[in-house]
Amino acid sequence: MDYVLPLTELIEQFRRFPGVGAKSAQRMAFQLLSWDKSDIHKFSDIVLRAGKDIHYCPDCFNFSTGGSLCAICTNEKRDKKTICVVSSARDLAALERTLEYKGLFHVLHGLISPMDGIGPDNLKISQLVQRLAKYSDVQEIILALSPSTEGEATTLYLTRLLKPFVSKITRLAFGLSVGSDIEQTDELTLARALEGRKDC
Amino acid sequence: MDYVLPLTELIEQFRRFPGVGAKSAQRMAFQLLSWDKSDIHKFSDIVLRAGKDIHYCPDCFNFSTGGSLCAICTNEKRDKKTICVVSSARDLAALERTLEYKGLFHVLHGLISPMDGIGPDNLKISQLVQRLAKYSDVQEIILALSPSTEGEATTLYLTRLLKPFVSKITRLAFGLSVGSDIEQTDELTLARALEGRKDC
Repeated sequence: MDYVLPLTELIEQFRRFPGVGAKSAQRMAFQLLSWDKSDIHKFSDIVLRAGKDIHYCPDCFNFSTGGSLCAICTNEKRDKKTICVVSSARDLAALERTLEYKGLFHVLHGLISPMDGIGPDNLKISQLVQRLAKYSDVQEIILALSPSTEGEATTLYLTRLLKPFVSKITRLAFGLSVGSDIEQTDELTLARALEGRKDC
Repeated sequence: MDYVLPLTELIEQFRRFPGVGAKSAQRMAFQLLSWDKSDIHKFSDIVLRAGKDIHYCPDCFNFSTGGSLCAICTNEKRDKKTICVVSSARDLAALERTLEYKGLFHVLHGLISPMDGIGPDNLKISQLVQRLAKYSDVQEIILALSPSTEGEATTLYLTRLLKPFVSKITRLAFGLSVGSDIEQTDELTLARALEGRKDC
């Protein structure tokens, strides 16, 4: 089945998104075509505007608008003495949703992965070092990176690199997930949870 | 966590698509922002162009461009003596993928559904009657509608309505599972159903 060209192109565009296969892309394209012309126009505009207006915060590399510092970096109530290092703005958002963390962030935009040709120079690591040199009152760096091979490699690399700049470097605790089942928990996690046990 | 406004708007737009929840919409928006500016521009353009250029074929109401007849209606190799009635362009595409059918189509753009306030007048039914009156050499109408309550009602309605205009009215063979969706049916099953069509 050949669709008309603009429709084929539209479906191809939707296929570029993560988790969107041939059928989903088709469904999305048909859905879009069922909208009012004004809604399609609005969608197109919002995409264009997002691409034009959204930049990285020059300090933490979170999303920001108009080339200025982001809402977290400019928030006077945030604790400027702590920087939490994350691999992506999505991980940043996940931490923000806990409502527990009041410090600043630094988004690396990836993890060290030699297999994929991603080294420290491809990440916002030198910018983190510059940031620490510039704001000398940072007292703690929290490395909040996923406990994958790449996350572990990046954690190790950053721990060594940042030692001269800051007295306290921490990482997220390993342990059981809330509501999980001990029986279902993998051995490594269980071993780490045991190792990190706390007084009751 | 408050994202910057253009990003929030972008996520909201993606949520409008079927099967896209909060997390998927966020993932899609982040993915889009990771593209080159030129790619974002292209995506926005393609959306806009699809909305502007894609119209219905004036004969069969499949998607077409520039107000002209669609590629199927203008294809000289198609059998003009048979019209297959489908509820949507997606169902049409599913039938085309079987490579079994060589006739024309007619897209109703819905099914009769009194519960949703959709009657025959809300569908492209009068246009089908006009089409049959105009091209008197149509010898068979195939009603390829999903075997749901609405599909059955529409099949029954069309069978009675079209009797005076055409000698042979058929429907897809059962072989389709009752309550299923044409779009989700695999090509082989759909081809068998087409092959075993029965008189109404």
